[in-house]
Amino acid sequence: MSQSISVGIVGATGAVGQELLGILAERNFPVGELRLLASPQSAGKSVVFRGEPFVIQATTEDSVSGLDVVFFSAGASRSREFAPAVLHSGGLVIDNSSAFRMDPEIPLVVPEINGELLQDGPRLVANPNCTAIMLLMAVAPLRRLGPISRLIVSTYQSISGAGAAAMEELLDQTRAVLAGEPAVPQILPHPCAFNVFSHNTPIGEDGLNEEESKVIAESRKILGEPNLAIQVTCVRVPVLRAHTETVVIEFAGSAPSLESVRTALRDAPGVQLVDDRATNTFPMPIEASGKDDVLVGRVRIDPSHPSAISLMVSGDQLRKGAALNAVQIAEVLALDPDRASGLSAASVGPKS
Amino acid sequence: MSQSISVGIVGATGAVGQELLGILAERNFPVGELRLLASPQSAGKSVVFRGEPFVIQATTEDSVSGLDVVFFSAGASRSREFAPAVLHSGGLVIDNSSAFRMDPEIPLVVPEINGELLQDGPRLVANPNCTAIMLLMAVAPLRRLGPISRLIVSTYQSISGAGAAAMEELLDQTRAVLAGEPAVPQILPHPCAFNVFSHNTPIGEDGLNEEESKVIAESRKILGEPNLAIQVTCVRVPVLRAHTETVVIEFAGSAPSLESVRTALRDAPGVQLVDDRATNTFPMPIEASGKDDVLVGRVRIDPSHPSAISLMVSGDQLRKGAALNAVQIAEVLALDPDRASGLSAASVGPKS
Repeated sequence: MSQSISVGIVGATGAVGQELLGILAERNFPVGELRLLASPQSAGKSVVFRGEPFVIQATTEDSVSGLDVVFFSAGASRSREFAPAVLHSGGLVIDNSSAFRMDPEIPLVVPEINGELLQDGPRLVANPNCTAIMLLMAVAPLRRLGPISRLIVSTYQSISGAGAAAMEELLDQTRAVLAGEPAVPQILPHPCAFNVFSHNTPIGEDGLNEEESKVIAESRKILGEPNLAIQVTCVRVPVLRAHTETVVIEFAGSAPSLESVRTALRDAPGVQLVDDRATNTFPMPIEASGKDDVLVGRVRIDPSHPSAISLMVSGDQLRKGAALNAVQIAEVLALDPDRASGLSAASVGPKS
Repeated sequence: MSQSISVGIVGATGAVGQELLGILAERNFPVGELRLLASPQSAGKSVVFRGEPFVIQATTEDSVSGLDVVFFSAGASRSREFAPAVLHSGGLVIDNSSAFRMDPEIPLVVPEINGELLQDGPRLVANPNCTAIMLLMAVAPLRRLGPISRLIVSTYQSISGAGAAAMEELLDQTRAVLAGEPAVPQILPHPCAFNVFSHNTPIGEDGLNEEESKVIAESRKILGEPNLAIQVTCVRVPVLRAHTETVVIEFAGSAPSLESVRTALRDAPGVQLVDDRATNTFPMPIEASGKDDVLVGRVRIDPSHPSAISLMVSGDQLRKGAALNAVQIAEVLALDPDRASGLSAASVGPKS
């Protein structure tokens, strides 16, 4: 393919922005012109892509215009402000923020799950919440074994989900605690070193925090099951990268056999089954970090319900949970739109 | 009270043994003779209690005999080997190991929950698994609001549950990772620094690890509900002390109001309600560490079930999860047996 695609990244200095650059290079995305955009404070800084320095520009209506694809990863308000200029100039928007995810007109896509939504060539595609992506990468392949009636999830979310500065905060606090000094929270509301806490997003009237509400609403939209029963508790743990989740899956009919669950997971594109009872080896965030595949395992019968199974998931929040999923969407829309019709049934890229 | 009780601690150099000494001192337990017992390798070492040095002796049938109360905290095989000598010499055994917990003849006691089992003056009492104690401190007070039909639990277990050496391993590994070196697991099977992993106990035929099987069996025994449906996933997190759990509680009838749940928790001895949605303040292990009370909060409706609520628990695994619960049992049996009949209805010690 000798295509050349002009690319913009809004939020190029952030954790997801940096990951986007790495993944575009790794996957040989045919980047032509590259505009790295960020807040005016970051403008003038230099970032390296494929060994070449690029100067960060301020995000403006001008700087986002005239590009083939613009990835947004700088928060919902930035996406709302600048996505229209991209679209107006004929560019494609792939948005990592929550700005458009629940807009019924805008597809919310995990290519392996509902990639067929890319068939119609949408100009703006929303990239889902990372916790929802991890959950659904494990759950969606099991729907062929029977209809799912309820999901019960607890998360072990890494600090990377709160951005690069929060990762630094975890490291700084950890150094402080080891030196016998207090862990002073600045970015996150509570100390994160050697601690866990309920997710740091505001709590609504219903008692759910915003992260939990996103997981529920986005999972229903992606699966096309607007009434699916979902219970989720989102918790932060002192892990740098990769989210882990425990999941109970209740089936409407009888529970599938564990062997059929393992087979469905083994066959699922983007999933790696990690399920060795003998050596107690199951998905762990340090193993999931840096990997494209989402690790799924600890598959077992739920002894408390006649038709439920339970499992664990670990996936790199910055890769499949954000940047990789966004690039996969761009690969279909910008490079190979014909592939969209075959998605959800087959793989996006080879299994690693 | 001018009683003087002769006390033995088997496993005096371990994490729980050290905590037992601290709690006996804090609560002014009238310790007369004190024998600190451990493996022959530790014999001759010195440990301080109330400012006075005590020399560790090897655990033998002789050294455990002739005492009023012996606390065992050195693993199940040590308890099985030496408990008979204590009983034979007229002493009382309070056993922190799993050796006798599921023996139908032996009471498994959390004083606030089933303290009435101490009425008959049992000579051997088993102290439950720490994860089960935390769970039940939150769940048992809610039974007065209606029968409970199912519990779904995920744990965030601190490294202290694996002993003092594992806590050192977490600190050493963390220092290594911060220095850019690998985290080499020695005591635990996987790296614990900046990682989470499925609990490190062997997996049975049913796919449950031993910790999960203990939580299920012991919770049923303590609540006196041999068929209670329980699903639990036990996971280790890089926290030094205090276990955290997310809990979904399904009621057999309609769900109680959240206000009645909060009131029941506020009234429960040994429980502190930590449930401030406005400031996102809920139970956290760094707050639970060193506290007698188990912290419970994040109380909310489970949106996925018509009669379920959800909450979070954090409690100090070494205190209420082990040493404190054992000392509370000793206080009733050795100091004030008449109190047993009033337990489970009232408090063990004042609310802090």
